[in-house]
Amino acid sequence: MINTVVFQGNQVKILDQSQLPDQVVYITCKTPFEVADAIKFMKVRGAPLIGVTAAFGLAMAVNNFDGPREGLDSFFCQVKEHLASTRPTAVNLFWALARMERIYKENASLDTREIARHLADEAEKMHSEDIKTNMAIGEHGQELLGENCRVMTICNAGALATCGYGTALGVVRSAFKKGKIAKVWACETRPVLQGARLTVWELLQDNIPVTLITDSTAGYIMELGEVDAVITGADRIAANGDTANKIGTYSLAVLAAYHSIPFYVAAPLSTVDLDTASGSEIPIEKRSQDEVRQIRGLHLTVPEVRAFNPAFDVTPHKLISGIITEKGVMREPFAETLKAVVKGR
Amino acid sequence: MINTVVFQGNQVKILDQSQLPDQVVYITCKTPFEVADAIKFMKVRGAPLIGVTAAFGLAMAVNNFDGPREGLDSFFCQVKEHLASTRPTAVNLFWALARMERIYKENASLDTREIARHLADEAEKMHSEDIKTNMAIGEHGQELLGENCRVMTICNAGALATCGYGTALGVVRSAFKKGKIAKVWACETRPVLQGARLTVWELLQDNIPVTLITDSTAGYIMELGEVDAVITGADRIAANGDTANKIGTYSLAVLAAYHSIPFYVAAPLSTVDLDTASGSEIPIEKRSQDEVRQIRGLHLTVPEVRAFNPAFDVTPHKLISGIITEKGVMREPFAETLKAVVKGR
Repeated sequence: MINTVVFQGNQVKILDQSQLPDQVVYITCKTPFEVADAIKFMKVRGAPLIGVTAAFGLAMAVNNFDGPREGLDSFFCQVKEHLASTRPTAVNLFWALARMERIYKENASLDTREIARHLADEAEKMHSEDIKTNMAIGEHGQELLGENCRVMTICNAGALATCGYGTALGVVRSAFKKGKIAKVWACETRPVLQGARLTVWELLQDNIPVTLITDSTAGYIMELGEVDAVITGADRIAANGDTANKIGTYSLAVLAAYHSIPFYVAAPLSTVDLDTASGSEIPIEKRSQDEVRQIRGLHLTVPEVRAFNPAFDVTPHKLISGIITEKGVMREPFAETLKAVVKGR
Repeated sequence: MINTVVFQGNQVKILDQSQLPDQVVYITCKTPFEVADAIKFMKVRGAPLIGVTAAFGLAMAVNNFDGPREGLDSFFCQVKEHLASTRPTAVNLFWALARMERIYKENASLDTREIARHLADEAEKMHSEDIKTNMAIGEHGQELLGENCRVMTICNAGALATCGYGTALGVVRSAFKKGKIAKVWACETRPVLQGARLTVWELLQDNIPVTLITDSTAGYIMELGEVDAVITGADRIAANGDTANKIGTYSLAVLAAYHSIPFYVAAPLSTVDLDTASGSEIPIEKRSQDEVRQIRGLHLTVPEVRAFNPAFDVTPHKLISGIITEKGVMREPFAETLKAVVKGR
């Protein structure tokens, strides 16, 4: 299994996903600001993974802090805020930083070295928990799938979006082990092509049959009767079940409903944000117009044309057949089922 | 107005659309086989335009024929078949070649020179008719649009897809002249990017406000309430109104229906094929996997991954609000309205 992020106490090594599938290269970050840049510029991406990566960045910052102890509180706050400012939509980032802050506050009476050790332990714990969580999601999710299942997915909610195994692709992996997967339809996921670059690469590594399509081919394939389930990841799930995920997810959900194909979201409970009542409250990140106008540096259009580039959209809960979590598959009414499971977490 | 194809008797000059918007370059074709290649490899594309281009190719072939008169019949047939074999879905190609064959047969008693002149006249007539047809489509179509209209389109059904003015973009042009167009949302149209490369380029030339989006952003923009109408072209319209058009059109039609946004098809009557009863009979061209795996020669994914690349999909007539033709806007029941107008053509 490939390591998406490796914590080494005084540095964080990050698999540079922007270079996949061409090369497997790690970036060594020695400051939390380098970690923040890696998140912001999507060298590391995937809601669960950016949470853990930010936690490692914060633990490293305290580990490497060489100022007087009385300066640590404000330094910690500043680094935490900087890491939080990188991307607005995925809630796992804020969840992970809040969890680190709790540890910091619980150990506020200790010296820098000891606090650093507690933070490192907590971040490592999140890392190993994430893998276990994904395997539980995979196990619950595979039960939803029948034999010879053809699953469609968008973006990469795989091992590369997490600390390993994956959420949507964790379900695919668990189902594949049981011999249930006939095919995965991977939507290429313009503009950043996480489907073409990452999902294809990681599924081929595991010999899971995958066919690449352009995003706009999804509806036609559903109409051909060649899709049994759509499974995506999530960047934030509101209290009522409305789910923000990669741009294009909403279109897939509408298309799936039209063709009576079940549409599942697979995500850890850390993606559920009970403080966000519904999808309309989820901030949607707008990214550079050049992501649409260019592809890996190649101009695709008239350079000065206006482009609109929201990184996410929101799928309303009524279009979601089930939310696959580590505690089981949540169903409508999501406002009740999600609250119960998150509170009982 | 840019010339998409120019007939010069002994040669056909074709605007090489595969090089747009980077350069405006013409290819000079001196044989019908060069014309066929230009169609097949999509240097020239757009249902109405490939029909006229093929007609010019056929006229040129006869003009340049220097064999004995008794060899002309079989030569004509062979060239016609070769041109017809280039692309299977757009019916305008077969319509134009059939029209040329009719002229050939009507003048079968004449010598090669005279037949060539009749064929050239007919092809030129189709060329000028196409522009008039588009302007009529534009005029009928603009009446469907209100003030400050935001139109979404896919692919390029513009001046570049025709002999000038355009079908879907002809409607946009006519509406723009009346001050009705607030914005055009151009879907980039993977894999060949006709939206990003061609629609953006031709609308900017006319100062029509255009915003480029990835194909999977369409649903989100509809959900935001920022689309008043979807207008696309067509490659073949079956007798019942089912319409083949660029892959992704079907998804847009489902999304438009879900959001109660009118979905219009704009096409000349030469696109209506009464011999095709319904969409399920329309052959859908599958193109090279590399169109999905690469973009303008740049690898996007693992080179050996399987990709599925249908060039078109079929939108069922029940999702179509109206078909805008040169004879007015056809409505349900299309099986009746289309038949009446085509027979009366």
